[in-house]
Amino acid sequence: MCRWLAYSGSPVLLQDLLYKPENSLVVQSRHSRLGVETINGDGFGVGWYGALEEPGIYHSTEPAWNDRNLRELSAHASAGRVFAHIRASTGTAVQQTNCHPFRHRSWLWMHNGSITDFTVLKRDLILAVDPALYTEIEGSTDSELFFFLALTFGLEEDPPEAVARAVGLIEETGRRHGIEHPIQMTVATTDGTTTWAFRYSSVGKSRSLFHSTDISTLRLQYPDNPVLHELSNDARLVVSEPLGDLRGAWREVPESTCLVVHGGREELREFSPTHALG
Amino acid sequence: MCRWLAYSGSPVLLQDLLYKPENSLVVQSRHSRLGVETINGDGFGVGWYGALEEPGIYHSTEPAWNDRNLRELSAHASAGRVFAHIRASTGTAVQQTNCHPFRHRSWLWMHNGSITDFTVLKRDLILAVDPALYTEIEGSTDSELFFFLALTFGLEEDPPEAVARAVGLIEETGRRHGIEHPIQMTVATTDGTTTWAFRYSSVGKSRSLFHSTDISTLRLQYPDNPVLHELSNDARLVVSEPLGDLRGAWREVPESTCLVVHGGREELREFSPTHALG
Amino acid sequence: MCRWLAYSGSPVLLQDLLYKPENSLVVQSRHSRLGVETINGDGFGVGWYGALEEPGIYHSTEPAWNDRNLRELSAHASAGRVFAHIRASTGTAVQQTNCHPFRHRSWLWMHNGSITDFTVLKRDLILAVDPALYTEIEGSTDSELFFFLALTFGLEEDPPEAVARAVGLIEETGRRHGIEHPIQMTVATTDGTTTWAFRYSSVGKSRSLFHSTDISTLRLQYPDNPVLHELSNDARLVVSEPLGDLRGAWREVPESTCLVVHGGREELREFSPTHALG
Amino acid sequence: MCRWLAYSGSPVLLQDLLYKPENSLVVQSRHSRLGVETINGDGFGVGWYGALEEPGIYHSTEPAWNDRNLRELSAHASAGRVFAHIRASTGTAVQQTNCHPFRHRSWLWMHNGSITDFTVLKRDLILAVDPALYTEIEGSTDSELFFFLALTFGLEEDPPEAVARAVGLIEETGRRHGIEHPIQMTVATTDGTTTWAFRYSSVGKSRSLFHSTDISTLRLQYPDNPVLHELSNDARLVVSEPLGDLRGAWREVPESTCLVVHGGREELREFSPTHALG
Repeated sequence: MCRWLAYSGSPVLLQDLLYKPENSLVVQSRHSRLGVETINGDGFGVGWYGALEEPGIYHSTEPAWNDRNLRELSAHASAGRVFAHIRASTGTAVQQTNCHPFRHRSWLWMHNGSITDFTVLKRDLILAVDPALYTEIEGSTDSELFFFLALTFGLEEDPPEAVARAVGLIEETGRRHGIEHPIQMTVATTDGTTTWAFRYSSVGKSRSLFHSTDISTLRLQYPDNPVLHELSNDARLVVSEPLGDLRGAWREVPESTCLVVHGGREELREFSPTHALG
Repeated sequence: MCRWLAYSGSPVLLQDLLYKPENSLVVQSRHSRLGVETINGDGFGVGWYGALEEPGIYHSTEPAWNDRNLRELSAHASAGRVFAHIRASTGTAVQQTNCHPFRHRSWLWMHNGSITDFTVLKRDLILAVDPALYTEIEGSTDSELFFFLALTFGLEEDPPEAVARAVGLIEETGRRHGIEHPIQMTVATTDGTTTWAFRYSSVGKSRSLFHSTDISTLRLQYPDNPVLHELSNDARLVVSEPLGDLRGAWREVPESTCLVVHGGREELREFSPTHALG
Repeated sequence: MCRWLAYSGSPVLLQDLLYKPENSLVVQSRHSRLGVETINGDGFGVGWYGALEEPGIYHSTEPAWNDRNLRELSAHASAGRVFAHIRASTGTAVQQTNCHPFRHRSWLWMHNGSITDFTVLKRDLILAVDPALYTEIEGSTDSELFFFLALTFGLEEDPPEAVARAVGLIEETGRRHGIEHPIQMTVATTDGTTTWAFRYSSVGKSRSLFHSTDISTLRLQYPDNPVLHELSNDARLVVSEPLGDLRGAWREVPESTCLVVHGGREELREFSPTHALG
Repeated sequence: MCRWLAYSGSPVLLQDLLYKPENSLVVQSRHSRLGVETINGDGFGVGWYGALEEPGIYHSTEPAWNDRNLRELSAHASAGRVFAHIRASTGTAVQQTNCHPFRHRSWLWMHNGSITDFTVLKRDLILAVDPALYTEIEGSTDSELFFFLALTFGLEEDPPEAVARAVGLIEETGRRHGIEHPIQMTVATTDGTTTWAFRYSSVGKSRSLFHSTDISTLRLQYPDNPVLHELSNDARLVVSEPLGDLRGAWREVPESTCLVVHGGREELREFSPTHALG
């Protein structure tokens, strides 16, 4: 499986997100605390929104802990919205086109989890992708295909509904093939302005997902923590696992939930797949 | 486009094929004489038949001229049947899963050329692949998909007919999309015992293809050439371009031809696509 | 050998330097017009000065034309001072630690050319490096060692004199070993504020080097060229070969010359090695 | 730190050594049981003696568990003498020239451990390398330099004495710089006929090292274990950690010991550094 983080708020250097926290994503790449696998060394990726509407992407097949270019980029690029992902392959090749986050126009998408028995389901799912979008698929992972299903179902117009329909299709397709629990997922997606994060699994026991709590309250509780005072009030993190041990800084996202982060506001909504067949 | 060679005969060290000739494949990777592109630096691959029925494959995304592991492998591995390919990408990603030769069980396949407007045709062609084979597709190239179409049409039973049907399907699909000349190709495929090489293009002006002539005759003409005396009588090479300037050593494969090499015999057959729609 | 460019002026996106010009550095990586080698596919590097005093560096062993991360970085990073270099190895390994530009604190260094018979001279030259600097050497190239010799001789205080002494030492060392023409070089170095570029060779026939002429004059001559109107008056480029065919835009740097670029002023000084032994 | 194995005996496929054992080297690359680090993902290397006197080498910077070419090579190459090494970098770059085993003519060398404060000692140690050998050093690790010190002191004539002198020099150099415990090592070296393995550390608590016991005795104890029956009587393994849980199959090499394996005979000798200064 994988680990990821989604940041939004005042512009920060990428290194402040990727390297500095006690349990940073680069630390997690060697020693994940909550992941199914402790090692996430099968490539990684970062997406960041700079001056352009389309985010920049850096994908690498090296373990994150070894990548010197990531260190350089992270020391120089700052952004007010950052997606980062470390990968533990569930079987598909370790290559840049299989690294998250995936991009379509100004949208980013990353996924932790898997589609069960993906080789069995892949062809049926590919057929469901809008032919106009199909040729943009570059890699071979379940995660990228899942993204293109969500795009097909209108991700750019109504993300929660599009994801619900994509998950519904995956579950129906899986069950048609006799797979009891077809999907396991935490997903984050953004258009550059709002972040939607989903925690769901067919089996009802999903991968871990946390979001940071209100920064201004935390500042009052921890007047001596300089990190908290550098961030803007609307800064928010959504993460596979907490970046450190600060009590009260992290709140678990409940099962079957969509978390919407826009500016300094977060909203939790129930999430359930939309099944075409009722 | 690309360059390739297919060897069969007495076991030779890979380096004798890849490095030693005056215009070896590694030399061609920097300075192809007859290719559309002079540089073929977008990865390469070697397939060789050793002790097992299934051939070994070495794929790399580095330019062949820089790869130290290829040099080492080539100095130590010898085989009586070798496929080697240097790639000049026509747009798809430079990654190992896009390197030739592609493998299915004991079969190898490599291609020089392209399917025109592949992004337009890809989805229709993918749908024609046998679903049971579909999940083996790992990369994103036209060449690998072409291989799986040929497998779908019975490559393992009747290679010339299967390739004819695959090419026919590609041409029909292309023309349905308004593409005048849908395919350009030289292809080599083998089951480890026989090699089939094809030269064809919809436009009737195909990429270059040559085969070596009878070794025993050449030995008589060139009594002082030690290379020729080390090879067995049945040694044969099929190549995108001659490996050297020895006059009389190379014969061009005609347009629209299938060359079959088995043991020391070669046979030229007319090749034309089989169009389902007549 | 190699190709490089050094830019200073108003902040520009890296892609405007690396991809957009007709004969851009990425174009040159496949088809250099003036280089000893037409292909410079043995890795590349970019150094850029962002918000920090220490420049960022991106080094890659892939051919520049294939690197997707370079494309992404170049679309998002802008800088008022950029060094970029494409490499054609003269024998040492293709690895990130052998990619230019090399960095020491806020300084960058890049080199086109070579130290003749470097394997013969290397040990003597290594011994001349300040032991306090020695452990910073990470790669195995003549170019990096040349940088550390210049640092040893005071590059950070008086660049022309330090380079003159480094070249003098290389020539003396070479001649002691019977090498007639020990060095061939164009070099660029910067502290982030001034750029020094050198053209010199022991044989008196040095690699090509050009600098852009006064931008404001060019604007008057070419009122319709938008590129020229986006650059600040003090923008300057020093390049191994012109980035396009605009007549009058490029002036050759003479043999045995040090070009100093600071703000919008350039100064040409004679350059000759300082030989310790007179 | 690192993990390694040295095999000698009847020819075996590399995959039988690298992938098949329960705690194989590839398994250890993710989950070492006895190493200082549980992950050894900073590249790896294999050296094998084929038909030539000079062994072949395959070096990769990828984690061993991801390398598809290693899987292919291992399925096809067999050898009667194999060195394999997985690396956990102690600071130097992850690049092929830093991967073990290192080679000089027909000799291989690999090392687990480190020279303490290597950056402090490096220059003094480099100066001690025979100038005629010096230019062969390609990488930047302590391990490769250690090899060249041993070569300088006559490794090819008397391995135990050459290693003793190299270790003595490292200890003397370290102590001159105030380093209490300058070296930590298990080392294996071979000329293709005999293997010498060393376990030593200045502090007297060395990295783990084991060797397999007499195969014929084991066969009697485990009549039903097919693996043991395929190996020749003289097959021997020296390993950083046991490849499985078979009781009685592994014997720890004592502290400060040189193990010599030649044919089916092993000999344990006391090892202590030779200090030039008494």
